[in-house]
Amino acid sequence: MFSFQCLRIIRKKSRALLYEKKCNLKRLKLSKNDVEIENINKKYNHLAQVVVKTKYSSINPSDLNLISGTYPMSSKVFPDIGGIGSVGIVEKILKPISNSRLKIGDSVAYIRCHNCNVGAWQSKILVSESNLIKIPENVSLIDALFCLSGPITAYLMLHNFIKLQSGDLIIQNGANSQCGIAIIELAKYMGLKSINLIRRHNAETDKVLVHNLYNHGADHVFHYDEIIENVSNIKKLVGTPKLAFNCISSDESTLSLIKMLDENSKFITYGGMSRQTFSINPSIFIFKNISLCGFWLTQWRKDNLSMIDGLFSEMFHLKSSYILSTPKYQSIDVEYFDNVNTFYQNYHVPRIYPIFKF
Amino acid sequence: MFSFQCLRIIRKKSRALLYEKKCNLKRLKLSKNDVEIENINKKYNHLAQVVVKTKYSSINPSDLNLISGTYPMSSKVFPDIGGIGSVGIVEKILKPISNSRLKIGDSVAYIRCHNCNVGAWQSKILVSESNLIKIPENVSLIDALFCLSGPITAYLMLHNFIKLQSGDLIIQNGANSQCGIAIIELAKYMGLKSINLIRRHNAETDKVLVHNLYNHGADHVFHYDEIIENVSNIKKLVGTPKLAFNCISSDESTLSLIKMLDENSKFITYGGMSRQTFSINPSIFIFKNISLCGFWLTQWRKDNLSMIDGLFSEMFHLKSSYILSTPKYQSIDVEYFDNVNTFYQNYHVPRIYPIFKF
Repeated sequence: MFSFQCLRIIRKKSRALLYEKKCNLKRLKLSKNDVEIENINKKYNHLAQVVVKTKYSSINPSDLNLISGTYPMSSKVFPDIGGIGSVGIVEKILKPISNSRLKIGDSVAYIRCHNCNVGAWQSKILVSESNLIKIPENVSLIDALFCLSGPITAYLMLHNFIKLQSGDLIIQNGANSQCGIAIIELAKYMGLKSINLIRRHNAETDKVLVHNLYNHGADHVFHYDEIIENVSNIKKLVGTPKLAFNCISSDESTLSLIKMLDENSKFITYGGMSRQTFSINPSIFIFKNISLCGFWLTQWRKDNLSMIDGLFSEMFHLKSSYILSTPKYQSIDVEYFDNVNTFYQNYHVPRIYPIFKF
Repeated sequence: MFSFQCLRIIRKKSRALLYEKKCNLKRLKLSKNDVEIENINKKYNHLAQVVVKTKYSSINPSDLNLISGTYPMSSKVFPDIGGIGSVGIVEKILKPISNSRLKIGDSVAYIRCHNCNVGAWQSKILVSESNLIKIPENVSLIDALFCLSGPITAYLMLHNFIKLQSGDLIIQNGANSQCGIAIIELAKYMGLKSINLIRRHNAETDKVLVHNLYNHGADHVFHYDEIIENVSNIKKLVGTPKLAFNCISSDESTLSLIKMLDENSKFITYGGMSRQTFSINPSIFIFKNISLCGFWLTQWRKDNLSMIDGLFSEMFHLKSSYILSTPKYQSIDVEYFDNVNTFYQNYHVPRIYPIFKF
């Protein structure tokens, strides 16, 4: 497929963050020039084989699930390379094709998926062209990186479940997450009204968090306990939404969504950040006809390959038009990856997102 | 609407089982000729007003919920008349219309609903013709009575959620309920394979119950704990269904359904017989794309008025063709309604259903 010499060059320069069984950020290991970069994607080997020099990688909740072994794409063979999404520069095209979309020097984004289960936390990746998304010149690598997970999930969930019209209400828990902020911003752009729920911290933190959500365009912000204790009055005040997004999945955070929902509503679960199960009263199905379903970006991408380029064009447009913001972040040099732990020990309000820099 | 004399005649003969706030079967009261029968259905008052002499009424879980106040149609004004379904004979047509479907002496079924919230546990009902279902001559009143709730729910749930083909697998908990038995019988008739789950009793009872389900046409019968402990092997043995029916809603009974389900499945809740909530792991939505929704016959009837006659024709056909069985029952004279309590204190295996006789 490509010459041994090429492989050696790539190998020599490859640095990767490796995880073992049931791993966490503390137990990651940086490889010592010994990771074999190979294209495991047999299906697309008629397409260009592209070497990308990674610049930044995300560290999202799904990345932590991946290395802990609770993610469906978690490896069963160890060590495996961590990381789901990254951005970088095309360094080499090993097998050029005539109608290639890419050329050396292009900015590209990579997202690990079912047909290319190659770790993103490495300094170089070798993948088929079809696994790369071209980043337009007016979008920075960092802005693109912060499009790859939350905002795309937000966009698809707002468009794919029920037909929403200007003025319609939506509700979410975990509103302070990356995806939550994107839901607020996209809802505002679409003319929707958003009801945003967060858990209660201390008064000072709450003030900053609530203020931050209003700054992003939230129409209403409540704590879970406010909803549970006072649902009738709040419904009178803000109305009853027909669509809810759940990324927390604790009892309190889901009950507060369900109590607010109208009959015949949809309740979409896209995360389990509480790492808990949640309780359901069967009457919500029978007498309120609420239906519960899920959303997983990785599965959507698998099922909608032909729509991915169009979707990312739209996302990059929303980014360059300042509809979607980029959060505060802190880049951590992969050579000093231990610093991620120090970072996570300090709670930042509003949140600052760590990313790996290669 | 009708003469005072008519009203007096009806009143004189009216006997009804009344419930107060948060009632149960023990605290029902038999009226003493003083219940006012009136047509609360304003919407259909251009149709015939029909007096039906009630012969039998069901005593289903939903009837117990109604009198306990946990059913959406439970009254807020007391006393109210209990009962959701009954069968009887047309005794009088107070306001004949030219194209009436009914004549005096016809057998009819009545089911309480949103637009005619009149109790079925009374010796006479006065309702619009549109609220009555004509029972064909080849179907007995008792057979018709046992069509009104479980079998219709079973029929609609098997037809309305996913397109099932001969050989497809379905799974249910509470398989020993009236609706559960109808699901088994209809699934067999449709060429489907049914996996039927029940809770564990003592060995002797279990033997009778399991045998009974196989007699009705069950393809597989398991206890909840068997599934939870041994799901991989059972899946290998029987396959993975794409449609589940839940009428119990306890943790054990729902977990055993969910563990058996394939990806992209539907899980339909139509009852909460355990009177518990149940826990859900968010990963079933995200990674297995299982969706949970509900079914409530009363709501379906409200939304599908024009389909009701056709549906009942089909049900009565299935009954007279012996596709749907009628369970063992014990009729309890309404004058001695206290006997229902005695009846419920003895557990019958297989179940015997009490009904009121007027």
